[in-house]
Amino acid sequence: MQKIAIINGPNLNLLGIREPQIYGTNNFNDYYKSLQAKNLHCTLHYFQSNIEGEIINYLHECLTEKFDGIIINAGAYTHTSIAIADAIAAINIPTVEVHISNVMAREEFRKTSFLATKCVGSISGLGLKGYELALLYFTATE
Amino acid sequence: MQKIAIINGPNLNLLGIREPQIYGTNNFNDYYKSLQAKNLHCTLHYFQSNIEGEIINYLHECLTEKFDGIIINAGAYTHTSIAIADAIAAINIPTVEVHISNVMAREEFRKTSFLATKCVGSISGLGLKGYELALLYFTATE
Amino acid sequence: MQKIAIINGPNLNLLGIREPQIYGTNNFNDYYKSLQAKNLHCTLHYFQSNIEGEIINYLHECLTEKFDGIIINAGAYTHTSIAIADAIAAINIPTVEVHISNVMAREEFRKTSFLATKCVGSISGLGLKGYELALLYFTATE
Amino acid sequence: MQKIAIINGPNLNLLGIREPQIYGTNNFNDYYKSLQAKNLHCTLHYFQSNIEGEIINYLHECLTEKFDGIIINAGAYTHTSIAIADAIAAINIPTVEVHISNVMAREEFRKTSFLATKCVGSISGLGLKGYELALLYFTATE
Amino acid sequence: MQKIAIINGPNLNLLGIREPQIYGTNNFNDYYKSLQAKNLHCTLHYFQSNIEGEIINYLHECLTEKFDGIIINAGAYTHTSIAIADAIAAINIPTVEVHISNVMAREEFRKTSFLATKCVGSISGLGLKGYELALLYFTATE
Amino acid sequence: MQKIAIINGPNLNLLGIREPQIYGTNNFNDYYKSLQAKNLHCTLHYFQSNIEGEIINYLHECLTEKFDGIIINAGAYTHTSIAIADAIAAINIPTVEVHISNVMAREEFRKTSFLATKCVGSISGLGLKGYELALLYFTATE
Amino acid sequence: MQKIAIINGPNLNLLGIREPQIYGTNNFNDYYKSLQAKNLHCTLHYFQSNIEGEIINYLHECLTEKFDGIIINAGAYTHTSIAIADAIAAINIPTVEVHISNVMAREEFRKTSFLATKCVGSISGLGLKGYELALLYFTATE
Amino acid sequence: MQKIAIINGPNLNLLGIREPQIYGTNNFNDYYKSLQAKNLHCTLHYFQSNIEGEIINYLHECLTEKFDGIIINAGAYTHTSIAIADAIAAINIPTVEVHISNVMAREEFRKTSFLATKCVGSISGLGLKGYELALLYFTATE
Amino acid sequence: MQKIAIINGPNLNLLGIREPQIYGTNNFNDYYKSLQAKNLHCTLHYFQSNIEGEIINYLHECLTEKFDGIIINAGAYTHTSIAIADAIAAINIPTVEVHISNVMAREEFRKTSFLATKCVGSISGLGLKGYELALLYFTATE
Amino acid sequence: MQKIAIINGPNLNLLGIREPQIYGTNNFNDYYKSLQAKNLHCTLHYFQSNIEGEIINYLHECLTEKFDGIIINAGAYTHTSIAIADAIAAINIPTVEVHISNVMAREEFRKTSFLATKCVGSISGLGLKGYELALLYFTATE
Amino acid sequence: MQKIAIINGPNLNLLGIREPQIYGTNNFNDYYKSLQAKNLHCTLHYFQSNIEGEIINYLHECLTEKFDGIIINAGAYTHTSIAIADAIAAINIPTVEVHISNVMAREEFRKTSFLATKCVGSISGLGLKGYELALLYFTATE
Amino acid sequence: MQKIAIINGPNLNLLGIREPQIYGTNNFNDYYKSLQAKNLHCTLHYFQSNIEGEIINYLHECLTEKFDGIIINAGAYTHTSIAIADAIAAINIPTVEVHISNVMAREEFRKTSFLATKCVGSISGLGLKGYELALLYFTATE
Repeated sequence: MQKIAIINGPNLNLLGIREPQIYGTNNFNDYYKSLQAKNLHCTLHYFQSNIEGEIINYLHECLTEKFDGIIINAGAYTHTSIAIADAIAAINIPTVEVHISNVMAREEFRKTSFLATKCVGSISGLGLKGYELALLYFTATE
Repeated sequence: MQKIAIINGPNLNLLGIREPQIYGTNNFNDYYKSLQAKNLHCTLHYFQSNIEGEIINYLHECLTEKFDGIIINAGAYTHTSIAIADAIAAINIPTVEVHISNVMAREEFRKTSFLATKCVGSISGLGLKGYELALLYFTATE
Repeated sequence: MQKIAIINGPNLNLLGIREPQIYGTNNFNDYYKSLQAKNLHCTLHYFQSNIEGEIINYLHECLTEKFDGIIINAGAYTHTSIAIADAIAAINIPTVEVHISNVMAREEFRKTSFLATKCVGSISGLGLKGYELALLYFTATE
Repeated sequence: MQKIAIINGPNLNLLGIREPQIYGTNNFNDYYKSLQAKNLHCTLHYFQSNIEGEIINYLHECLTEKFDGIIINAGAYTHTSIAIADAIAAINIPTVEVHISNVMAREEFRKTSFLATKCVGSISGLGLKGYELALLYFTATE
Repeated sequence: MQKIAIINGPNLNLLGIREPQIYGTNNFNDYYKSLQAKNLHCTLHYFQSNIEGEIINYLHECLTEKFDGIIINAGAYTHTSIAIADAIAAINIPTVEVHISNVMAREEFRKTSFLATKCVGSISGLGLKGYELALLYFTATE
Repeated sequence: MQKIAIINGPNLNLLGIREPQIYGTNNFNDYYKSLQAKNLHCTLHYFQSNIEGEIINYLHECLTEKFDGIIINAGAYTHTSIAIADAIAAINIPTVEVHISNVMAREEFRKTSFLATKCVGSISGLGLKGYELALLYFTATE
Repeated sequence: MQKIAIINGPNLNLLGIREPQIYGTNNFNDYYKSLQAKNLHCTLHYFQSNIEGEIINYLHECLTEKFDGIIINAGAYTHTSIAIADAIAAINIPTVEVHISNVMAREEFRKTSFLATKCVGSISGLGLKGYELALLYFTATE
Repeated sequence: MQKIAIINGPNLNLLGIREPQIYGTNNFNDYYKSLQAKNLHCTLHYFQSNIEGEIINYLHECLTEKFDGIIINAGAYTHTSIAIADAIAAINIPTVEVHISNVMAREEFRKTSFLATKCVGSISGLGLKGYELALLYFTATE
Repeated sequence: MQKIAIINGPNLNLLGIREPQIYGTNNFNDYYKSLQAKNLHCTLHYFQSNIEGEIINYLHECLTEKFDGIIINAGAYTHTSIAIADAIAAINIPTVEVHISNVMAREEFRKTSFLATKCVGSISGLGLKGYELALLYFTATE
Repeated sequence: MQKIAIINGPNLNLLGIREPQIYGTNNFNDYYKSLQAKNLHCTLHYFQSNIEGEIINYLHECLTEKFDGIIINAGAYTHTSIAIADAIAAINIPTVEVHISNVMAREEFRKTSFLATKCVGSISGLGLKGYELALLYFTATE
Repeated sequence: MQKIAIINGPNLNLLGIREPQIYGTNNFNDYYKSLQAKNLHCTLHYFQSNIEGEIINYLHECLTEKFDGIIINAGAYTHTSIAIADAIAAINIPTVEVHISNVMAREEFRKTSFLATKCVGSISGLGLKGYELALLYFTATE
Repeated sequence: MQKIAIINGPNLNLLGIREPQIYGTNNFNDYYKSLQAKNLHCTLHYFQSNIEGEIINYLHECLTEKFDGIIINAGAYTHTSIAIADAIAAINIPTVEVHISNVMAREEFRKTSFLATKCVGSISGLGLKGYELALLYFTATE
C-alpha cells in the first residue's frame, strides 16, 4: 500500500469561505473525509500551512518517512517559492501539482510555476476533483 | 451516458516512434483500445489531424453532434493557435486540455497555452494516463 | 465593374452562434445576401475556410482570376499567420482588413496583426457594417 | 438628424503640405466641403487643435451640446494621450477613430492607441475616405 | 544512391511572380529541372504545400519511405510552426533548412526559427543556389 | 497659516458625471466647499485645467506666490507628463499626489507615475477623502 | 466603535534604528502609544511579524474576530507576497496599504505591489503620519 | 542672412532657479542677449512655451515665415511628444536639438528622444554653450 | 577576536543528500566541525532555518549581539527575498554572500540576487570551501 | 579567376582541440589544405586573428587588394561586434557568413548576429563543409 | 594653450569611401588639416585605431601626457565597449563624444551609448563640423 | 607545485589611480609583490592587457604551458566578451572569476557575466583580497 501526502499551502484553510466564485463553496476537511472514505488503496496524510518554511520542513519529513508520492497545492507559493521547488527536487519523491482553479486563465503572475519543473506533472482547473485524480495517478492500475 | 470526444493534434499519430525519451513507447491506438475496454460509462469518439483547420472543423462538428465533453491534446498547436482556442470558446462545451509530457518543464515556448484560458482545466506530465484521468473528470461520481 | 473577394477566416462560419456578446447574433450568410441585394456596383465573391493554407490557396486564385480588391477578415490567423501576410504581399492586390469586434480593446494577443502591414488599411469594431464600408472604399466615387 | 463632430488633432491643419507621400496632397478644408456637399443626413461640426487639452475641452462641450457621434483623428496624441482617452470614456458618446495612413504599417510607436479601447472602432489607411466611411457608420441604414 | 526530399512551404509556388526584388524572377519548377539535370548522385523528390499540416503529413511519409535527407524551406511557417519543428524532431532524418533571401536582414519576426533547433544546419540568402549547396552537403565527398 | 494649492488635472472637472462606478457621483466643487467649511488651519487655492502646460504655468506661479504645500491630482497626466514632474522638481515645494481611484488596481498604464518620484508621497484609492487626508498631512500637528 | 488592526511586516520592528535616512528615527512603539492617546474613535490592535505566513494567519484571525478595517504595511512582502494578497482578498475586510517611505521613488523592485490590487487604496511617503491618515480614512466623518 | 529660431520647451523659463546643480545658475534671457551681442551673421528669433501645442503652432509659423533653421530644446517634451516630432517632419526645415544637461547620463526615460529622428542632429551636455554651437552649425563657413 | 555568524537558508540542512551532482556529498555539520577545528581566530555561530522570517529574526539578533561579520547562504531566498535584503541593510553589519554552486551558470532565475546589493561581496561556485574563504576575508591579515 | 578570402575569428585557431563535441576533431589547417587541393577555380587567402580590430584591418586590406568575395566565420564576435559588421558594409565586397555549429540551436546569445544584416547570406551547422559550400556559392556556375 | 586629443575609432579611417550616403565623401585627413589651419587656440593631437584596446591604451597616455580635453568618435565601439567607457571615467579628463551621422535616427542598436554617461556631452548628426564645434566647446570664450 | 595565472583585463593597470572610491588606492603591482611574498605553495604568473584578443591569446598559451588554474578579472570584458568566455571553455583549465568591487551592486550592465558560465565560480566585492582567496581555493588543503 502506497503512502501519499497531500500538502496544501497558504489560504487553502479558508476554502469554502474564500472567494467562492473562484474556489467553490466546499471546505477541504469535508472533502478530505470523503476522499478517505473512497478507499483508494493508499495511506493518506494531510498537511496544511500558511508558512513557506513549514511546508519545506514537512517535505523534508516526507523523505525521512519514506513517502511514495506527494500531491501539493502550494497556493500562492507556487508562483514565488524557489525554496519549495528546491525542496521537491532535493527529496526526489514523485510529486503532482494540483490547482483547484484554472491558474492559466487568471492573473498574469499566476502563470509562472517554480514548482512545475520539479514535479512529475500537474492538474489544474478541475476543482477539488483534481486531488482525487492525482491520487489515481499514483494508485490506479495501468 | 455522456458523449466524449478525444482530439489529438499534430505528430501524436507518431506516438511510440517519436522521441520516446519524452513521449514514451506506447502508440495511441493500443492505448485507446485499452481505454475503451475499461468501460468508463461514456461513448468515446476519437479524432486526430495534423491540420489546424481540420481540428477546428471537428470542434464545430462536436457542437452539431451535441457532445458533453471534449479532451484535447492539441500538441504544438497548443502554443500557437488562437484559432483553435477561439473554436473552443465558440462551441461552449466543457473541454479539458491534456499533455503527455510536463510542458512547463520543457522549452520556454511550450509554457504558453492559448487553449488554457478557454478550457475548464488541464492535466499534464502524467503520460497517457492523463487521458483517462480527464475522462474520469467527466464521468466519475463526486 | 470591379471584382471583389470577401474572405473569412476561422470560426466566422459560426457567426451568430459564437460568443454573441462579442460578435452579435447575425449569421454571415444572411448578411452577405443583404449586401448583394444592395447592388454596390461590383461583383462579389465569398470564401470561408478554417484552414490557413486554403486561405493562401484562395488568395493565389485571386491573382489568377484578376480580382480588383480583397476584403479579408482572417479571424485568429490575423495575429499568428505570417504566411497569409506573405500571400497578400505576393499577389499585390489592394486588400482591406476587417474585424467585427474592436480587436484593440480585447486580449493583448489580438493587438498584433501580421496582415496589417501588407494591407491598404483596416476597419475594426464597426460590426458587420465594416464589410460594407470596406466595399464602399473600393466602389464609392471620391 | 444626427449631430456629428469631426475632431482633428495636431498637424492635421497642415494636410496637403505635410509629408505628402504619407498623407496625400489634399487639404482638409476642401475635403470637408465636399463631404458637406454630399448631404449625408447629419449635421457636421468640425474642430481642429494642436493642443491636447483643447481637444479635451471640446470633447466635454460635445457632452453639453448632446452630440450623437464623434469621429476623431487625434494624430500623434493617439499614441500618447491617456487624457483624451479618458475624456472619450467620460462623455460616453459613440466615437470612431480615423487615421489617414495605415498606422500599423509605420513606426513601432504608432502601433499603440490609447484611444482605441475607449472608441467603438477604427478605420485606418483608407485616406481621407476614412472620414466619410466613419460618417456612414453613423448614418447609413442597416 | 541517397534519397533526398525537397520541401517547399507557403507561397513558394509563386516564386518568380512574388516580390521579385526579394525572391528573384526564376520560378522553382525550372530551377528544379536544372537541378535534376545536374545529376548530383541522389534521387530527388519534390513536395510543396501551403497547408502546414500537409507538410507535417509529408514529413511523416519521409519516415515511412526511408529518406536519407531532407531540404526544407518552410517559408513563413519557419517562424511560427512548432508543429513542423516537432515533426522534424519526430522523424529523426537529417534536415537542412534553406531560405532564398537573407532572413536575418529582414523583418524582426523573420529572425526566429522554430525549425533551426531541430535541423542540422541552415543556408540562407544565397538565392536558389542554396538548394544545390544543401544537396551537396548530403552528396559531396568530404 | 499655511498656503496650500489643490491642483486638478484633465477630466476632473467632469467629476460626478464621469464613469461614476470608478470616480463616484460627487462633483468636486461641492466637495471643495465642504473642505473649506471644515476650517483646516490653512488658506486653500484651487486650480483645474485640461491643458498640461497650464498646470506647469500654475506650478511656476506657486513658486512666485510662495505656497507652503501642493496637493496635485494630475489625472491622466500622472502617467505621461515628465514636464509636470520636472516642474514640481523645479519649484521645490512639498507636493502630495492624490488619486481618487486605486490606480494600482486598474489598467497597466496607470501603474506608472512620473510625478511620484518628485513628490513627498501619495494617497490613492480613498476617494475624495484623499484630498482631506493630504491636507491633514500638511496641517495636522504631529 | 470600529475595530481596526494595524499590521506591520518584516523589519518594521527595527524602526528608528534601521536606515534612518529613509525611515526616520522614531520607533513604532512610541508612535503607536501617541496614536492611541489621540483617542480616534476606534479600537486599535497591533501585530508585527517577520514571517510571511504569520501575517497570513493573523489576517485570517481578523476575519474570525470581525474587524472593520485593516491598515497594513507589509514592508518588503508588499513586493513579493501573492499569498498575503490572496489572504486580503479571501477575508474581504477593507484594507489600506501604508508605506513610510515613498516606495515609488526608490528601487525599481519596490514599484510592484501585489497587495495594492486587493486593498482599497494606499498612502505612501508621508512617514509615520501615514498610519494616522489611514485611520482617519476609516473613522473621520465625511 | 539666415533666419534662425530658438525654441525652448517646458520649465526652461525657470533656468537659473531650477535644479541649479543640473541646469546651472544662468537664466536664459541674459544668455540670449549675450548671444545676440556676438553678432553671429543671422537673425535670431526666440520662443518659449510650457504648452506642447503652442510649440507645434510656432513650428507651423516657422514654415509660413520661411525660417532657414531651427534650434529646439523641447525639454521634457523631447521624450514624450510624437506630435512635436511630427511637426518638425511636416515643416521640413533643418532643425538641431539642444539639451543643456547630458540627457544620456540621467534617468532612463530621458534617453528616448522622439525628436531626434526628425532632426539633423543634436548637441547635449555642453550647457548653454550648446545653443551657440548649434547656431555655428548653421552659420559658420565650412 | 571577531564574532562571526554563518547563516544557512532553506534546504541546506539536506546537504549531502540533496542533488549531490550539484551540491556535493558532504553534509554541513561535518564541514562545520572541520571549520571550527581549523582555529581561524574568530568565534563562530551557526544558524539554519527553512523559514524566511526566522532568518530575519536571527539577523536582528546579530545586531543585538554585536556580531562583527556575517556569512550568509540564503539558498533559494537569495533570489526572492527583499525582506532578508532589507534586514541586512537594516542591521548594517558587513555580510558576505556564499553559494556552493555557481549560481550564474544555472537556471535564469538564480541569476538575480536581492541580497547582493546589500552585501559587501560574494563567493560562489567554490563548493563548501567558499565558507572558509569568506571567513578568511574577515580574519586574515592584509 | 576570383580572389576569395577566408577569415576566421577568435578561438578558431584551436579547432580540433576546442570542445570537440561541438566543433569536431579536425583542425582548420588540414582542412584548408584539402580545400586548396580541390582546385575550386579561385585564389584562396586565409587570415585568422583573435583580435577584433585586426579582423577589421584585414577587411580593409581586402578592399585595397580588390577581393571578389569573402567568407567569414567571426566566431564569438558575430554576436558582439558592430565594428566588424560596419567594416563589411564599408568595403562593399560580397561576404558569406559561415558557422561550423548550428548557432541557432545553442545559447540564446548566439542567436543574434550583427554581421548577418551586412552579409549576402549565411551557412551554419554544416561543419567544416560549410566553408566549401560558401566557396561554391562564389565559384560554381549557375 | 589647451592640449586636445581627437580620437577616432573603427572604420573611420575609411571616411570618404565608406557608405558615403551616410558619412559623406570627405576623408578625415583633409578635414583634419583644414581644422589645424583654422588656428583654434589649442594644440591638436590625432589618433585612430580599429582596435578597442589600443584606444584604451591611448586614453591612458592622455592621462600621462596631461591633456586638457578629449574629443572621441568611438564609432561602433560607442555601443559595445564598456571598457572604453571605463577608461574615460578612469582618466577623468573632460571628454566630448562626436558622431558624424545622427545615430539616434539609425538602427536600434546605435541608440545605446556606453560612453555617453562618462562624457561631458555629445554632438551628433552635424557631419565633420561636429569635431570643430566640439573643439570650440573647449576653446571658445563664454 | 601548482602553476597559476592571474589575468587582469582593461583599465586594471590604472588601479590605485582609477576611481579610488570604487577600486581603492592600492596599485596592483605592489599587491602582487605582497602576494608572491606570502609563499602560497604555487608558481604565480601575471598578465595584463587592455586588448580583448591578447587576453584570448594568453589563455591559449596557458593551455600550451599546462597551467593548473587561472584567476581572471576581465574587467569590463566580463560583461561583453563571449570570445573570452569561449576561450576559457576551449582550454578547459579551472578558472575563478574575481572582481574587486561588488559588481552586482553597481550599474545594470555589470550584472551580466559571459565568463561566469564557463568558470568554476567567482569572488566579488572583497577588494584585492579576492585574488588571494581565489589562490587559496586552488592551493589550500581541504
